[in-house]
Amino acid sequence: MTPTTLQALGDILLHPRGIAIIGASPEPHRIGGQPIRALKEFGYAGRVYPVNPKYDEVQGLPCCRDIASVPKPCDIALICVPASAVAQSIRECGHVGIPAAVVLSAGFKEIGEAGQALQDDLDAAIAESGVRVIGPNCQGMLSPAEHVYCGFGAPFMYSHALTGSIALVTQSGGFGYAVMGLSEAEGTGFNHVISTGNEADVTALDLMELLLAHEKTRIVATYIEGVKDGRRLTALGHQALSVNKPILVWKVGNSETGKIAAASHTANLSAGVEMYRTAFAQGGYVELSDVYDLVDMANAFSSPHRPQGKRVAVISISGGAGVLLADVCDGLGLSLPAMSEETLVQLRGLLPGFSSLLNPIDVTAQIFNDFSVFNKVVSAVGADPGIDQLIVVMASVEGANALKLATELADIHGRLNKPIFVVSSAPAARAKEAREKFREAAIPVYPTPSRAAKGMAAVTEFERKRVAHMARATATVTRSFQKPTITMPDAPGTSLSERESKAILTAYGIPVVQEVFLTMDRAVAGDYSGIAFPVVAKLDSPDLPHKTEAGAVRVGLQNAPALKTAIDDMVQSAKAYKPDARIAGVSVQQMATGTEVIVGTVNDPYFGPTVVFGLGGIFTELLKDISMRFAPVSIEDARSMVTEIKASKLLTGYRGGLPVDLDRIAEIIHRVSWLAHDHQDRIAEIDINPIFVRPLGQESVAADGLIVLKPMEKAL
Amino acid sequence: MTPTTLQALGDILLHPRGIAIIGASPEPHRIGGQPIRALKEFGYAGRVYPVNPKYDEVQGLPCCRDIASVPKPCDIALICVPASAVAQSIRECGHVGIPAAVVLSAGFKEIGEAGQALQDDLDAAIAESGVRVIGPNCQGMLSPAEHVYCGFGAPFMYSHALTGSIALVTQSGGFGYAVMGLSEAEGTGFNHVISTGNEADVTALDLMELLLAHEKTRIVATYIEGVKDGRRLTALGHQALSVNKPILVWKVGNSETGKIAAASHTANLSAGVEMYRTAFAQGGYVELSDVYDLVDMANAFSSPHRPQGKRVAVISISGGAGVLLADVCDGLGLSLPAMSEETLVQLRGLLPGFSSLLNPIDVTAQIFNDFSVFNKVVSAVGADPGIDQLIVVMASVEGANALKLATELADIHGRLNKPIFVVSSAPAARAKEAREKFREAAIPVYPTPSRAAKGMAAVTEFERKRVAHMARATATVTRSFQKPTITMPDAPGTSLSERESKAILTAYGIPVVQEVFLTMDRAVAGDYSGIAFPVVAKLDSPDLPHKTEAGAVRVGLQNAPALKTAIDDMVQSAKAYKPDARIAGVSVQQMATGTEVIVGTVNDPYFGPTVVFGLGGIFTELLKDISMRFAPVSIEDARSMVTEIKASKLLTGYRGGLPVDLDRIAEIIHRVSWLAHDHQDRIAEIDINPIFVRPLGQESVAADGLIVLKPMEKAL
Repeated sequence: MTPTTLQALGDILLHPRGIAIIGASPEPHRIGGQPIRALKEFGYAGRVYPVNPKYDEVQGLPCCRDIASVPKPCDIALICVPASAVAQSIRECGHVGIPAAVVLSAGFKEIGEAGQALQDDLDAAIAESGVRVIGPNCQGMLSPAEHVYCGFGAPFMYSHALTGSIALVTQSGGFGYAVMGLSEAEGTGFNHVISTGNEADVTALDLMELLLAHEKTRIVATYIEGVKDGRRLTALGHQALSVNKPILVWKVGNSETGKIAAASHTANLSAGVEMYRTAFAQGGYVELSDVYDLVDMANAFSSPHRPQGKRVAVISISGGAGVLLADVCDGLGLSLPAMSEETLVQLRGLLPGFSSLLNPIDVTAQIFNDFSVFNKVVSAVGADPGIDQLIVVMASVEGANALKLATELADIHGRLNKPIFVVSSAPAARAKEAREKFREAAIPVYPTPSRAAKGMAAVTEFERKRVAHMARATATVTRSFQKPTITMPDAPGTSLSERESKAILTAYGIPVVQEVFLTMDRAVAGDYSGIAFPVVAKLDSPDLPHKTEAGAVRVGLQNAPALKTAIDDMVQSAKAYKPDARIAGVSVQQMATGTEVIVGTVNDPYFGPTVVFGLGGIFTELLKDISMRFAPVSIEDARSMVTEIKASKLLTGYRGGLPVDLDRIAEIIHRVSWLAHDHQDRIAEIDINPIFVRPLGQESVAADGLIVLKPMEKAL
Repeated sequence: MTPTTLQALGDILLHPRGIAIIGASPEPHRIGGQPIRALKEFGYAGRVYPVNPKYDEVQGLPCCRDIASVPKPCDIALICVPASAVAQSIRECGHVGIPAAVVLSAGFKEIGEAGQALQDDLDAAIAESGVRVIGPNCQGMLSPAEHVYCGFGAPFMYSHALTGSIALVTQSGGFGYAVMGLSEAEGTGFNHVISTGNEADVTALDLMELLLAHEKTRIVATYIEGVKDGRRLTALGHQALSVNKPILVWKVGNSETGKIAAASHTANLSAGVEMYRTAFAQGGYVELSDVYDLVDMANAFSSPHRPQGKRVAVISISGGAGVLLADVCDGLGLSLPAMSEETLVQLRGLLPGFSSLLNPIDVTAQIFNDFSVFNKVVSAVGADPGIDQLIVVMASVEGANALKLATELADIHGRLNKPIFVVSSAPAARAKEAREKFREAAIPVYPTPSRAAKGMAAVTEFERKRVAHMARATATVTRSFQKPTITMPDAPGTSLSERESKAILTAYGIPVVQEVFLTMDRAVAGDYSGIAFPVVAKLDSPDLPHKTEAGAVRVGLQNAPALKTAIDDMVQSAKAYKPDARIAGVSVQQMATGTEVIVGTVNDPYFGPTVVFGLGGIFTELLKDISMRFAPVSIEDARSMVTEIKASKLLTGYRGGLPVDLDRIAEIIHRVSWLAHDHQDRIAEIDINPIFVRPLGQESVAADGLIVLKPMEKAL
């Protein structure tokens, strides 16, 4: 059977016409029995085919002896047999043309050595049969929108009436379904929730891609412990911006303990969280860190209006909530600007002397005497062209008063074309009609000010990224220079010498310090003609990647005798440090000055070549004040890398110092990123540390550079 | 009338025998009518006395013509009259001996100039009458524990059946009562909720003190925008540790916008948030940033067991939740150590091959086949002496299974004497009996892993601080040296010259660089005998506090001619910078080397003298990597200040460098703190920048020091 494409798989998984339960059980509480009961009782419109050689009938349905006897159409085989029988079941599905299987069975690679043979057999069965497989070791798939209950556990024991336009893809079934239950309790429903387990075939990334293309899904949520294809994660982020659907992402397994736990949980071992954050920052991702975040973000993105910018007006009955919102918005990068003079004139007519007309606007408890004032204020503020969106704090107003406010707000919201978020702390039961009115008007309602502001900030940031993304003509990064031809030394797994490294950097147009190379003969003989002092001297050796530690660097040498002494000393130190170190000669370099920065690349097994920028010395090493992008990096993005580090003020003119040439640094980052990209098959790391950067008109130069090659591929 | 003491005020406010409503209204929805209805209908056991000359009867109760006619006993006058009539009402209360008043009326200093006269009159009335006043401009007081409803707004419109041992003091009524409503919806009740408004007399701090002493209150919660007496806030934090009651504190008005909003809301203008955080860190405070934090912390502190340390075992049905908890605990400073070998032996007997025996322990979905395993695992892990507390994740288990687990966990919890927190994501309605069982056993239950971990981390940190606090013999900081006698120059509002400043520092035993002072005559004449080069030269002038900017510093001068040229240059620069600058001479100092640190003090109007420590240059100024303590600072605390900055590794031996003499830095901080404390009436700021600190055995020295005196008091 030809494997179903990802696109066609969407139809099959999200709208299955028939489901066979392989390993069907007559007992509705057993894993092989739960889905049968649920599919029968909770409204699934397709056909259900129990399969078990032991029975003629299961839970009132005719039972098939084997997979070959399953009638058509059958889109999904739900596999509940022991691990040892799974591969055979998949092969049989292939024979009879069942295109997809969901494997609940556990006991594969997630248990380590003991499960590896079964995993290998399963992998082979998938390849041979062409069946698309979700799992194994997953909790299944639950689609309230289609009443599809292909899985086991508490959420498969009752009918999910609540649905929505959010789809959830989860690498942990238990966790994902807990999120589902808690979200539902808060009024947020899902259309599809799919757990992926070991991802022997279909991955979380596949499902995210499939769901971004799914018409009825407006928000994709995902719980991930790790992905294998980091660049695809990045690409999906761009796709999310293109199709204007946020991906709400909850990434766990970030701490050292968490990483180890994730490895033993779903056999996931992946890149560091900073790689993920780099991907998230560049695409349409919204990061979550609790269940309520998911509810709040879903709520925020349900507004039909998107903000034009980050300028928020807060209108509050509770002055305290206004003060809090001022703090929270500030921390989230939203601004609370003053109203225009025109708006203020209107407000002064509406509000009594003791209300604050600053933003946040405190309408005070006096509105309890005349509620109509409240919405007149909202209308006036909403019309202010300097305001992009509004947060209206209704505090604990309830019952008929709440309904009156809601009705008028819904009216304003319909006319305004700006997002309005409401904070209402009245218990839901005491403001029922008002909540219903807000729901109809698609006005997000939050129980606390902080949650409203977080939701608003996420939509604002998504919208900012989306607009920027759409404005870029193309997502491809163009090179500002001709691709150089270089010959990479054939020395897998080793560090190139500084001289070799710098030759490659020079070929890529990265400026390096002027240097004179002395052979050991010349160095020892003391023939230093043509050298302009003061200088730095370094031994040139492929065996000493960490020169400082080996005592193989001397700085500030003022004249020839000092250089001679230094060379003798260095040779002695290096021999003591590493007796068999090969020394090719001495590199004598100009003394460079300026502000030290570092440009480096790593070649992550999951995310590919990645560029890191930081200030020299302790800034990068101790304070971790760095910026990252995946290579290649456009000059524009490179400039953002420079300005987004915390200590960037040191580069832009600190304490009256001259600003350094930022364009030049950006150009260097851009070129280094292309070097890492062009030669990603060979280069493991580039470390240019330091580059002395200087003000406009003075050349910035790399004083040191190291290129480390990848080890030989095992296959070779 | 003699004003009631704070202690006696507790009895009056928390258990009032009679309440008079001044400005009573027959209409139950009016501000003067709401409390009458609530007191009558919601179970208040004391007497209710409406007061209004217009009526003989109000809402079925006999109405008094004036305050003088109110029968005894009457403990509280609830004042709902217009602002202009409030002061007179207070005076009348004083005449007839009503000891306390709650003033709901607004229109005082919070509206600015316009309300100042009424505020002044009110202040005078309070002073004359001896009546203790809550408010004005507050929303009142609501005590579910005593059915006291002295206020207005939505929460006073219905009966609060839920009570608890948490008292809430709030500077914002609207906000505080919204918090109350939302917390109640989550099952957390209060005994007393008091809003303080403008704090003309009784402050939030008074009420916090009163409630810490209140037997039936186990947790004090507070919402504050600003307090006037920062040192008392600190003292209450110590008191909280002494009486073993946490203060859950929600501080707002922290951003620039928030500060301005707070000023116009409750007329609060106070110190920066870093001062508050310094106070919170030193005492029994737990900082909140959302309503759910309050619920979660109340829940966490309700456990009868306190942890001995930060070692947590996580036992989870959902592997994903375990991975998440590993991350979250790591971020919160909790550790997940490995189990002892003895525990592991037991676990291997209980759990199947494919469970993870690492911490977090993933018991996997296989426990659905035998629930008894789960609690055997919990018992074994709980008995491990290397574990201080447990988080048990029940995922979505519900109904009878949930009850079975809860019953066994309650049993283990009773025997164990270690905190057990449960995470259960089953909807409350589907695990009702289990929740009841947990409630009876006082086992905190959380809907999500993150919230459980945050609660646990807060209790762990409180307990750590409490144990440390109790271990200290006394809270007073003793001086490690004799108090020096110094003569402070009589120059209010000015900066002392470097020479004057250094003389004071020297008297306090703070080492400063060796220097030779040259009069201008000698400096210009070029007589430099007795000076050992290289040196730094600085002009000595009271008019040039920022010497670098004035060009009045030259470093690295190698010999006498260089010094002469430098002096001529500096005089020229200084005259250009400030033509009328008085120049007393030239200070010629040894060139000091070492790692630069800064020790400074500020004299905050609310928190008093406060010491700041940081590394020199950009670390303090740009990266804000500083530590703070209120003066005086013990040597032990001073040492903590040094090690708690982010870049402290630079002092303790970075990249093979020698560690600097930390004891010496601590000693210097200690002495500077005493200087700031001893002379807090005169000193506004001390800025010792830089101090060159060096390894043990080499003296650390201050290369510069500046003392700024406070301006003259207005009263003088």
